[in-house]
Amino acid sequence: MAGEFDLIARHFDWPAPPGTLGVGDDCALLPVAPGHRLAITTDLLLEGRHFFSDVDPEALGHKALAVNVSDLAAMGARPLGCVLGLSLPAIDDAWLERFARGFRALSVAVGCPLVGGDTTRSQQGVVISVTAMGEVPDAAVLTRSAARAGDDIWVTGVLGAPHMALELLQGRHPGHHDLLGSLRPCLERPQPPVAFAAELPGVAHAAIDISDGLLQDLGHVLKASGCAAEIDYARLPVHPALGNVEASVVQRAVLNGGDVYQLCFTASSDAATVIGALAARHDIRASVVGRILPGDGIRVLNSPIPLGEDGYSGFDHFG
Amino acid sequence: MAGEFDLIARHFDWPAPPGTLGVGDDCALLPVAPGHRLAITTDLLLEGRHFFSDVDPEALGHKALAVNVSDLAAMGARPLGCVLGLSLPAIDDAWLERFARGFRALSVAVGCPLVGGDTTRSQQGVVISVTAMGEVPDAAVLTRSAARAGDDIWVTGVLGAPHMALELLQGRHPGHHDLLGSLRPCLERPQPPVAFAAELPGVAHAAIDISDGLLQDLGHVLKASGCAAEIDYARLPVHPALGNVEASVVQRAVLNGGDVYQLCFTASSDAATVIGALAARHDIRASVVGRILPGDGIRVLNSPIPLGEDGYSGFDHFG
Repeated sequence: MAGEFDLIARHFDWPAPPGTLGVGDDCALLPVAPGHRLAITTDLLLEGRHFFSDVDPEALGHKALAVNVSDLAAMGARPLGCVLGLSLPAIDDAWLERFARGFRALSVAVGCPLVGGDTTRSQQGVVISVTAMGEVPDAAVLTRSAARAGDDIWVTGVLGAPHMALELLQGRHPGHHDLLGSLRPCLERPQPPVAFAAELPGVAHAAIDISDGLLQDLGHVLKASGCAAEIDYARLPVHPALGNVEASVVQRAVLNGGDVYQLCFTASSDAATVIGALAARHDIRASVVGRILPGDGIRVLNSPIPLGEDGYSGFDHFG
Repeated sequence: MAGEFDLIARHFDWPAPPGTLGVGDDCALLPVAPGHRLAITTDLLLEGRHFFSDVDPEALGHKALAVNVSDLAAMGARPLGCVLGLSLPAIDDAWLERFARGFRALSVAVGCPLVGGDTTRSQQGVVISVTAMGEVPDAAVLTRSAARAGDDIWVTGVLGAPHMALELLQGRHPGHHDLLGSLRPCLERPQPPVAFAAELPGVAHAAIDISDGLLQDLGHVLKASGCAAEIDYARLPVHPALGNVEASVVQRAVLNGGDVYQLCFTASSDAATVIGALAARHDIRASVVGRILPGDGIRVLNSPIPLGEDGYSGFDHFG
């Protein structure tokens, strides 16, 4: 296993924080604080399916971790650490160095150290498996099922950019190609509000990360909570670069666009001031965009285009 | 994500134990007892590399989990749960049903519930990623570095069978083909001594699971602990079906054969009675096979064939 160990040591054997045992034993070890539960999430990313062969490896390293810490944020969990499974057709040190740099930069930024992994050769293409772990106070987990009628609906960050960037990369909307430079980082380097989210338990009720589109992801919360929602389109935080794009294109990107990795969460309106202060302290944007209601379904007020059936379409991995 | 969710629900949505939150939110949640640390291990298994396309899916499901709970056992950790990433070229319900049955049977047997996962379509072949988590008392983790000169060296179970089974499946040793039936289960359904291992913290010192061969894996312990070892070949627990096989073939299978997923651990000789009683209670075989010494290297006494340089050869994933 010398090659395997060398590979890990060369690129991924970063100092582990106190209380942890990192790469080099049968398991990694992490402390979990008393009164907290362990939160776990895992994602499997495949070349040709989730990313193109010519993707910037640094962006790929960033995103492979980002999609997982985004899930931790959606539970209100503080990151503890992560493990990485990596399968490569060949050892390409330049590629690995860049992948590791992107992974590590986000790992440091959000406090989610890499504590273990498994590397192997693949005959097919690059395969990346990331499992991230966090801790969350026992009594205040932000589950999908905790929304209550009367809650405000909040969204962090801005919407629409990753979807539009993807469509521009696919050659669509050629008249707006000049926007790609400002939109692309939102697709390739999503910045989940991890530290902010870790302060939401006890303040917010339900939460989910926006990975498949606001309407679809909010729909999961509503279904799990047995509630309805009313969204005010005019209050949705739209990426500023979309200001001159056709309303129909923007609406689709904002309501149905995935890959956002920002939070949609609900909280009593009494908590609005506290949440606003938290957002300011963490230097993130947080917007009230609607309200939880009794019943089921989502109504969108003030949308430029009336919502059709496709307003709820999403991405089915086996569709 | 309906197809993805349906797939998980159909085959993998097993009841979660109290205190856990299983499939269906952004993260799974698990309790970790006070005074314990979280142990994590992950493995990435690829069709064509780690298993053949025509492998029995039930055995594959078993083994995908077994290799991970074996790593938990090697730390003395009690399993808490696991997550599964699964990528498939197409949905084959019959295949999935068998894979899930094998995975589940071991999951139930060792108390390591599946609490979350990620499924996706693969264009290349089956990809399986398993991350298993356990808890281990803070002060008594069985690390690789905890062996002390004077310790007994123990091995659980028996040695040699998986290696010989693999060689028979490759068409080697045709005169012994009748042994395949009794050896094959050791290769395809390894049974790591999980419950026994969870009682070793406080009793044993260092431990490792035998995945790459006794000499190579013990070598990792010795290197991490700064010690040497003396193994008495005559005391090694050889699989009984190998009784009539040529000594050179048996010796290689016993000393260098991987895929065993039994434990090699060290303990003070004062602990021998307690360990013997533990093994009896868990109905597993545990044998003292040698001793930890000051210095470095491994000496094997009483081996039928003198050890050459290749006595230390192993499997390099990138070799």
